[in-house]
Parts: sequence; structure tokens; C-alpha cells
Amino acid sequence: MLIVPEREIPDLLTREASFAAVEKVFAAMDAGDACNFPVVREAIGHEDALYGFKGGFDRKGGVLGLKAGGFWPHNMERRQLINHQSTVFLFDPDTGKVSAMVGGNYLTALRTAAASSVSIRHLARKDAKVLGMIGAGHQATFQLRAALEQRDFERVVGWNYHPDMLPNLAKVCDEAGVPFQAVDLDGMTEADVIVSITSAFAPSLMADHVAPGTHIACMGTDTKGKQEVEAQLLARATVFTDEIAQSISIGEAQHAVAEGLIAEADVHQIGAVINGTHPGRTSNEEITLFDGTGVGLQDLAVSAAIVELAKAKGVAIEVDF
Amino acid sequence: MLIVPEREIPDLLTREASFAAVEKVFAAMDAGDACNFPVVREAIGHEDALYGFKGGFDRKGGVLGLKAGGFWPHNMERRQLINHQSTVFLFDPDTGKVSAMVGGNYLTALRTAAASSVSIRHLARKDAKVLGMIGAGHQATFQLRAALEQRDFERVVGWNYHPDMLPNLAKVCDEAGVPFQAVDLDGMTEADVIVSITSAFAPSLMADHVAPGTHIACMGTDTKGKQEVEAQLLARATVFTDEIAQSISIGEAQHAVAEGLIAEADVHQIGAVINGTHPGRTSNEEITLFDGTGVGLQDLAVSAAIVELAKAKGVAIEVDF
Repeated sequence: MLIVPEREIPDLLTREASFAAVEKVFAAMDAGDACNFPVVREAIGHEDALYGFKGGFDRKGGVLGLKAGGFWPHNMERRQLINHQSTVFLFDPDTGKVSAMVGGNYLTALRTAAASSVSIRHLARKDAKVLGMIGAGHQATFQLRAALEQRDFERVVGWNYHPDMLPNLAKVCDEAGVPFQAVDLDGMTEADVIVSITSAFAPSLMADHVAPGTHIACMGTDTKGKQEVEAQLLARATVFTDEIAQSISIGEAQHAVAEGLIAEADVHQIGAVINGTHPGRTSNEEITLFDGTGVGLQDLAVSAAIVELAKAKGVAIEVDF
Repeated sequence: MLIVPEREIPDLLTREASFAAVEKVFAAMDAGDACNFPVVREAIGHEDALYGFKGGFDRKGGVLGLKAGGFWPHNMERRQLINHQSTVFLFDPDTGKVSAMVGGNYLTALRTAAASSVSIRHLARKDAKVLGMIGAGHQATFQLRAALEQRDFERVVGWNYHPDMLPNLAKVCDEAGVPFQAVDLDGMTEADVIVSITSAFAPSLMADHVAPGTHIACMGTDTKGKQEVEAQLLARATVFTDEIAQSISIGEAQHAVAEGLIAEADVHQIGAVINGTHPGRTSNEEITLFDGTGVGLQDLAVSAAIVELAKAKGVAIEVDF
């Protein structure tokens, strides 16, 4: 079996490779060629940690396995370790034997950024000029970097609950040579694309903060109770997601569905747009919204790409297991 | 992190170490110090394989992780690989980082054998002389070897649906110096302890095949629909299990509960007997029945023991992950 340690991955994995892997597996999911398994997520009653497994099988890509790990909220303060810790294990689908182990921290950041970028590529207006960012934490910098590659953005407007974190966004914009401006939530009406990446349990972005023709990627809601945008916004938008079952239960759509504002049938898989079986955006006035809940198959697809890159570069550790 | 490959484990893991680890974790489960996570088990639609994860956390023992793998029914005929393939991954409960990877095939056989042995130690009559075996496959040899150590058995009687496999049992008995005799199911009335280890979907052992005072360990039923013994037998017996939730849903007790012959409250955790909070057997006429469904914590406990043994013997592979 092959092992790719966390430390090797930033030098191996590009945004392009992440994007390609995530786009392909979203397409495979919608075509019925790949499926996610039920998610296990447990509060273990130790270190306030949440631990669990996200597994799946991509029959077309021949990728089987799981990401295991979770959220250890005291890691940084107590041990100078990042709070999200995960590891991906791949298995040979022909035999059930473990085939690879891959550090899961950096790839999780890139696959999450890739998901919002896939949605921008397939759903945002081609002439989008202004990118709006809600959230300015560590993950927001990954989302921003990846989003900037999808359209010829001339400007970024950003808002965060704690404004002192906005320089994180300004720094990325500076590196990319795009002007950055801190705004009130009202200022989001200027944006053609909005990426929301917070861990909020109450909506920040209201329906009136969004202009016609905008594409919104909601990337922060992955748990019952979390919410980034007003439920009414989903009723105004055409709603897409990575996986419908997750979207309506633990994703941003959970609230609009619970309130009866939209039905399960109003939520479409982004894979259908990629595969051409759903038209996606049909006018310049339509609001599109992508509910990115995060699925195990994203992790597996990117991990399989990392293993190939590591083999090519000769940095995979081979263990006779 | 440390890696203990499958090939090292038969030389490291003893029946005694497996027994001690399983007995201890059953006790921890009943005391509320250890819990199993929901089981994921999926037919992946490739190679007719069943794949999934059994995870858990033993707070007292400090053991967190999962066993991943499953059943690849064509492995042997197509590739000369065993059909059950699994791997255990342990995590540091303080940080969420992966700490060890352990081959899971041999340990699964030993932990399953340890579970029936734990039940025999705590529930069988002290003067048990005749051991009955239902089933004569590969796993049955492990159950038999381990069971023989728990009482001064003078004789083994065995039955299998395919009698041509009974020499598997005879060989183990020969090595242990205990006479073996093939019998009809009626012959099980001679047994003081019966271990059933089949993958049957219809009962073999009927209530009338069991004499008063017998202890029965049902070790084969781990899936909805499987059944080894007549449901009426559970109504006659005092029923114990590794985990009540599994026992009544996917274990042997599923049928007796579904038929209303017993209630959930009639099923007791073996850990309570180990901990002394349940009296266990209270007479020489009582029939006791252990429903061994197999829990992730057994795998984790035995794997943690293997890692310690491998470190002591210097055979663990250290990888800078």
C-alpha cells in the first residue's frame, strides 16, 4: 500500500487537480455511477471532539474508501495542532484490501474550495465582474483563491461577523491583483457571485442583499441547525447541491424545506448540470444557489488524484502491508 | 504512526490477549465507558462485495477508531485471497490524528472466538463436560479452540449442514486431546455448552435439542434475516448479548423480539455479568444464551493490544505520517 503524508500534499495537489476530481465525481454521482455511504458523526465526550466517517464508492473511477477524523476544538490552543484533523483511506474495490492512506487536512480545504468553484463555472453568469465573500476565516481564503479563477472578476467585496479578520481576504486579493473592499451586507447587492463560508447558526445574507442574476455558493452549512442565508432566498433561487439527501437534511436547504418554502424536488444535483441533463442557469436575471454540503466522494476523488501525483513524483511511501 | 501488517499478527496475538481485551471492553461498554458508533454496511454493486465501517470509542481504555472492510465473496476463487478483508485504524483521542493501522483479518477471527469464550467463562456451569459445536467452517475452528480452554471438557459433539466439513473440528479436538463425535442435532441434548457459528438464514438448533442447564453461544447472526436457533429457545433461556441494540435488530434475538416471545428488556449485556451488576446464571437448570453480534469495540480493543505487543517485539513499522 502507499502512504502520502500530510506534509507532502501542499506541494502535490493543485487547485486545478482538485477542481477536475470534484467536477468529475459530482458528474458520476448524478449519473448513478458513484454513491456516498451514510455519514457517521459522533460527539465522543472527550476533548469536546466530533469524530466520524464519510465513505463512498465511485464505481466509474474505481475509488472506494472513507475519510475518518473530525473536529478537535482545543487542538490549536492546547497543542499547536489544527483543529480539523482527518485521514483518507482508500481500498481496492476488487479485493477489499487497503491500498492507500492520505493526509486529509489540506485536501479537505482544497476540495471544499473546488466545490464552490465548480458551481461558479457551471452556474454563474459568464460576465460576472464582482465577487462577494461572506466569511473571512482560514477556509475563506481557499474559497476566494479558487473562485477568482472562474471568471474575470474586477473587484471583491467582503463581509465578516468579525471585521478584524477581513485582512485575510484582502491579502489573497492583493496577491491576485484584484481590488478588495469591506462592505456591509447591503453591499452584497453589487456582487454577481457570492461565496458564503461561515459556521453560523443564524442567517447573515438576506434575500434583499442579493441582486437578480447572482450566483450564490453556500459552503458552510453541514450540520442540522447551521444556517448562512435567509430561507426565503432559496425560494427565490434555483437551488443546486452536491447531494440532495444531505442538502435537505443537514445543508442550507434544510430550513427552506422545513418551512415549506421549497420542496425536495426543487433541489437539483450540480452533476446534472455538468452532465447536461439539467440546463442550469436559463437567464441573466435568475438567481442560482449552490448548497455545498460536502460529501465523502469529494475527499476520495481528490485523494485518488493525490496518490497518482505522489507516485509520479516519487514521494509516496510504500509499505508492505 | 505505527503499522502492524497482517502477516505479523498470528505470531503476536494470543487467545489469552484477545480474551482479556474483549472481556475488558464488554465491561467498559456496560459501565458506559465505551460506545460503538452506528454501523455502515453497504452492498457496493461490484464483485458482490459488502463493505463498511464499525467504529467506536473506549473512553476508559483511550481507544478510538474503526474497522473498515467487508466481504468479497469471489476473492478466494478469483485471486487466492481470503474473502473477509478488513483493516483497523486507531486514532489518538486527544488530537484526532491517526495513530496506528493494523491488519484486521486474523484478529477478527480471534476476537469472535474470544466473545463466545467470555460468555462461557461467565455463564456456563462450572462442571460442564460436553461441548457441542454447530458449524464446522474456518471460523468454527477458532471458536472451538478458544472454548476448550474455558472448562474441563471431556468430549466434543459436532454437527454441520455439510457433514464433510466435520473433520475441521475433529482435527482441533485431536490436537487438544479431546474426543470428537459427529452427531445429529438431537445429539446436542448431551452438550453442557453449545457454540453455534454458521451463516444460516433458518434455524438449525431447536429448543428441544437443548437440555436444561446448557449455555449456548450464538455467534453467526450479524445481519437482518440470519438465524441459527429456534426463536422459542430464547424464550426458554436467559438471554445475554454484547450490545442490546444490535442483538434485537441484527442479532439472534431479532426473531424472538419480532415474534413477541421476548422483549428488549429480557436481553442483558454480558458486561453487566462481568461487572457483577447482573447475577448471570442462577441455577444449574437455567438455560443461558449469549447472542454474539460482533461490535467494533472488540476489534479496536484487540488492535490496541496488538500494537502494544508489536512495539514490545519491535515489529511495528513506524511511518512519519
